[in-house]
Parts: sequence; C-alpha cells; structure tokens
Amino acid sequence: MTTQEFSQPGRLAQDGEGISLEELALAARNHGMPLEALRYDVTPAGLHYLLIHYDIPDLNPETFQLTVNGTSTVTFTLDELRAMPSATVRVTMECAGNGRARLLPRPVSQPWLVEAVGTAEWTGVPLHEVLTRAGIDPAAVEVVFTGADHGIERGVEQDYQRSLPMAEAMRAETLLAYQMNGLPLLPQHGFPLRLVVPGWYGMAHVKWLTRIDFVAEPFQGFQQATAYRIRQEPGEQGEAITRIAPRALMVPPGFPDFMTRTRVVRPGPVELTGRAWSGRAPLEGVEVSTGQDWHAAILEADAGHQWAWRRWRYMWNAEPGEYTLKVRAVTQDGETQTDDTWNRGGFTNNAPQEVRVVCVA
Amino acid sequence: MTTQEFSQPGRLAQDGEGISLEELALAARNHGMPLEALRYDVTPAGLHYLLIHYDIPDLNPETFQLTVNGTSTVTFTLDELRAMPSATVRVTMECAGNGRARLLPRPVSQPWLVEAVGTAEWTGVPLHEVLTRAGIDPAAVEVVFTGADHGIERGVEQDYQRSLPMAEAMRAETLLAYQMNGLPLLPQHGFPLRLVVPGWYGMAHVKWLTRIDFVAEPFQGFQQATAYRIRQEPGEQGEAITRIAPRALMVPPGFPDFMTRTRVVRPGPVELTGRAWSGRAPLEGVEVSTGQDWHAAILEADAGHQWAWRRWRYMWNAEPGEYTLKVRAVTQDGETQTDDTWNRGGFTNNAPQEVRVVCVA
Repeated sequence: MTTQEFSQPGRLAQDGEGISLEELALAARNHGMPLEALRYDVTPAGLHYLLIHYDIPDLNPETFQLTVNGTSTVTFTLDELRAMPSATVRVTMECAGNGRARLLPRPVSQPWLVEAVGTAEWTGVPLHEVLTRAGIDPAAVEVVFTGADHGIERGVEQDYQRSLPMAEAMRAETLLAYQMNGLPLLPQHGFPLRLVVPGWYGMAHVKWLTRIDFVAEPFQGFQQATAYRIRQEPGEQGEAITRIAPRALMVPPGFPDFMTRTRVVRPGPVELTGRAWSGRAPLEGVEVSTGQDWHAAILEADAGHQWAWRRWRYMWNAEPGEYTLKVRAVTQDGETQTDDTWNRGGFTNNAPQEVRVVCVA
Repeated sequence: MTTQEFSQPGRLAQDGEGISLEELALAARNHGMPLEALRYDVTPAGLHYLLIHYDIPDLNPETFQLTVNGTSTVTFTLDELRAMPSATVRVTMECAGNGRARLLPRPVSQPWLVEAVGTAEWTGVPLHEVLTRAGIDPAAVEVVFTGADHGIERGVEQDYQRSLPMAEAMRAETLLAYQMNGLPLLPQHGFPLRLVVPGWYGMAHVKWLTRIDFVAEPFQGFQQATAYRIRQEPGEQGEAITRIAPRALMVPPGFPDFMTRTRVVRPGPVELTGRAWSGRAPLEGVEVSTGQDWHAAILEADAGHQWAWRRWRYMWNAEPGEYTLKVRAVTQDGETQTDDTWNRGGFTNNAPQEVRVVCVA
C-alpha cells in the first residue's frame, strides 16, 4: 500500500453528505471552547480550543534543546531560555479553519462550527532576543519554525513547519512561550516551548518548537504553500492566511436543550453578552440582530490587552416567540462579517454566529 | 412554540445517515482524550474527557453552600468541607456513552468513538462523613445528588440529578471532591464541588453539586429512570447503568495521516502499549490481535490504585502490509469485550478498539 492510498488530497463533501466518521474522529480530539466560556477574560485550562495536526509529542524538558541556525548555530536549553528577558502577552487565538463545517459545500477536514477560539496569557522570551543571539542572516526574508509533531498529510510526510516574514518575527510581542496562564505549557499546547504570534491565526503559533532557520526565499513547505491558503479552485496558488479576521461571538443566553442546543429564555430583559476580536485593524464596534435590523452593542475598552478579545453587551427585551440571534464585529477599517466566505479549504469563515432562541412564558 | 417541538425524544440514525450538525455541536464541546494521552498515569488538565449535559455553571466559591437534607438540614461552605477529613483517590472515569457512534444503527446523541475516558487524582471529603453529620435517615434506600447544570432534555426541564444506593454512598472511597490533580476543580469538571464514585460510569459523578437528599423509594428522576438505561426497545423499563465494563485501549503506534488517522509504522519491532480498566471485577489480563489470533499482553500491577487504569504492553514484529490492530481486557470473572453491544441508547459499547496501521518499508 502506498501512502497515496490512505493519505488523500483534500475534497469537498457531496450534496447532503453528513459529517463522516473521519471528521468526527478529528472533532473528538480537537475540541472547541464551550461558548459559555466566553464569560472568562482568560480561558481556563482545558477550555481553550485545540488543533493538533498529528500526535501530541512526548518531549523531555530535561534534555530539550532549541536549535537556532543563524549566522552561527546556537542551542538553547529551557533553563537558558528562562534566564533571558521575558514578556507576557494576553492573546486571543483562533483556528484558521473555524466555521468550516458551516460552509456549503463543506470542505472535508477538521469540522469546526464557531467555537475554535480561546484566550491565554503567554509568557516567554521575545523571539527577536533569540534570533539576535544566534545572529540574523542579512539575506533572510523569512524565519522557518519546525515543531516535533510528525505525520503525513495529503501524501506528504512531514514535521509541522511554518514560516514568518522577518518583520513579524522581529515584533516585540512575538514570543517563544514556555508558560500559559502562569504555569508550564500543557502537553497539548506545545510543552515545553511554542511560538506565539499575536494577531495571527493558530497555524502560525508552532507548538513543540525544536528548530528555527532563516531562509533567503519565501518558504515552500506544505503548511505554507499547500495548506492554509484561500483558493476557489484546486489549481490556484491562492492567498496565504495570516491575521485573524474580525469576529464577535455570543454566550448563548438562557439554558439549552441537550440535543439541539436550542436556547430557552423567559420573557423580559435578557442581557446578551460575549466577546469580539480582530487580528487586523482594531475593533470599531459590535452589532446585534434579534430579527431584521442590526443594533449597536456596548463594546468595552481593551484595557491594555491589544491582542485579546473585548467584552460586549446588549440589552434585549425578549417577548414570547422564536428568534435567531446574530452578532457581528466591525473594525476601524470598516471590515465586518459577511456570509460570503466560501473557499475550498474552508478557512477564515467568519460568517456571523446564529443562536436559535425560544422565548417561552 | 412548545418545548416538545425543539426538545425531541431520542432516535436512531437512518441507514447511511452521516453525523448531523447537532451531533457535531456536542462533539465540539464535549471532547474525548487524544489516545496518545494513554501514556500518562494521570491525565493532564484539559485532556481528560468531558461530558456536560447543559452549560458549565458559573458558581461563586465565596457564597457556595452544599445543602444536605438528612434527619436535619445542614449546610456546608467550601471552607467547612475542606476542614473535614480528606482522602485522595486515583480514578479512571469513562462516559457511559463511549463507543456510541460506532454502533449501527447509531443512537443520535453525543457521538463518542472510543476516547471518552481519563484518569485523575480526586481529593475531597468522604461522602459518608457529610451524610453522617447531617444524620442518615433510617428509612433511606438511596441518596439523591442535585447539580447546578440546568437545561431541557427530551422535553423535561431539569437540574441534573442522579441517585446512588445507600451502600455505594457509604463506601470509604466515594468522595465530595474539591480538588483534581492537586488543584481546585476546573469549571468544566464541576467547580467548586462534585461527586466522585470510583468504578462507576461518569453519569454518577454529579458535577457542580449543590444539594443532597435521602429518599425512601428508588429515585425516578429523568437521568435515572429515563436516560442511562440499557434498552432494546423504546417502551422497556431497561436496566440501570452502574459500573464500568472492562475495556483496553491502545496508544496508536507510529505516526498518523492527518485526515484518516491511519497509522504508519516501519518494519521491525514495535512496542504496542496502552491502558486497561474495569469498574466491575478486577482485570485478569489483556489480549492483543494483529490479525486472526489473540495474544496475551503483559499487564502491569495496579500499584495500589484499584480504581485506575493499568498499563499493558505487547511486542509486535511489524512486517510490510496493512493491519487492523485490536486489544481487549478480560476480568477475573471472565467478562471480556465483544462486538455484541448494541442498545437503543448507545451505552456501554466496549467493542474492541480497532487501529488501522500500514507498515511501509
């Protein structure tokens, strides 16, 4: 049997094709954030979304070394990294595939609905400190990051690898993180070391980071040139995915039906609340619809956390009936959320969340 | 709109019906344990399986009180519970619905494959200490536990409630737990207080516990008399689900294909390893199949952790080809895992795990 027989190209689901057991197996490992957890400024351990391409590696922190191939090759132990200058940044991270399973036709991959998000406080060494110590190659246009996560994807055996342009790598807030929320990284979040690139979709934040290289030409690895690109047709080069598009999500109000997750509220004032974020231009506002029109919600300030979600709220006077509640974010550049987001890989689908609510007396 | 219109009876999927978006929404919130995490004696935070019927409640530990209606009504604050005698028990917990999505026809509910399991160290007050302090009703046959998790299920609005027979409630190792792995409970695992009943399926371990009552007749609440029963036909009274059936699981060897999770190994010796457990009779052994026959694996001792999984291992000499690896546990009572496990609710399906492996030179 060749790898091509069990490791196939991407495909679109057929008309009416339900979620497959293969998609379900990914959903059972790679969980989203239950939306009531939007109540927390910082997502508690285990509720932050997770997307792991292959297996969680089993790395030994005692023998762990990060290798940086700069103008010289320098290795760093964890103790050496911990002894360097450190910074802590609160970051809202979202999977580039969030919203994929709501697209029609549905791209067959990790089948996210809307919950592939979370916010954490990451502590680590600013990446530029490490790059500078190894010597920055003057010819470099990008930095390539290699993780220990190993597998096959669409016929290509690989360690997970991604690159960043030099300017993104040298940002003050781009970190090599060894702590999440004040504790050592959990195994599933990249223990003992991962990259954190505030404002970018999750695929850039390479977990279980073991090696850094400079390259003089744009990196052509699988996760850069094949995956994580916006394409309408299979043959296109496509557009690289970088920063997080604006999105607002709502804590589903009232209480749920177990199976359908339909929400039940009682008549009267119901405070709708949630979070909104953007890795692009800063947010300008959040709008809520309980029927036809969009209404401005109150958007709280970022309280100094530029790369984290912001709370919003809107007072709804619920009357008996059925509703589809929606919410959308708008940036200072005028970018907002639309339903016109389809692409072949099912990326960056920030179509507004829809929450089905029944108000019963 | 009535609650019956959006909160329907249980049903079976039709022939060829894929996983629905409603089942997927449950899978996105209620995650399993990635099977490589079978490597850990105690499952790290966030990798333990989760099944939450409704929403994660937001309870304030400062004002939290547990009410126990014994021969008198006694309330306990968290500080009062922490000041009482404590015990720590390592427990392997499994969802009663584990394996449901592998059944044909598939019962439509939380669509677990095989990964709804985890092991934690729970610390708390032995339940019998609290019951004794409130005064045990001499007429009681069961103890009823009420959680703060509120919702609707098959038309019935409810707080999550389950009961235990007196003998199970009075076991030394049945705990009111306020710590998991040495830290306060995470919100999703029942913060600030939950019931832990070693050896029982997860539905018994009531989370966000707020009230305890004695009853003189067997409890007839929804989660006891309607849900969590083994039935072949809808009208049957059915058999109550209690203790965990034996099961062994394998760490998938080699490395995976992203989408199909097919495993790739190289020719030569491959150590297969994993964990096995039983909430019924103790384990006698574990058997592995790499083709037609079952072979005895080495099963490690329980090291004093009677209610936790045990490690097993088996050396396989892989040759190029395609394989479906299987593993099964056998108890000292001779109970083992079979494929004949179908029931209408999709409970206790411990059919042997199947791991598809390709050995390529």
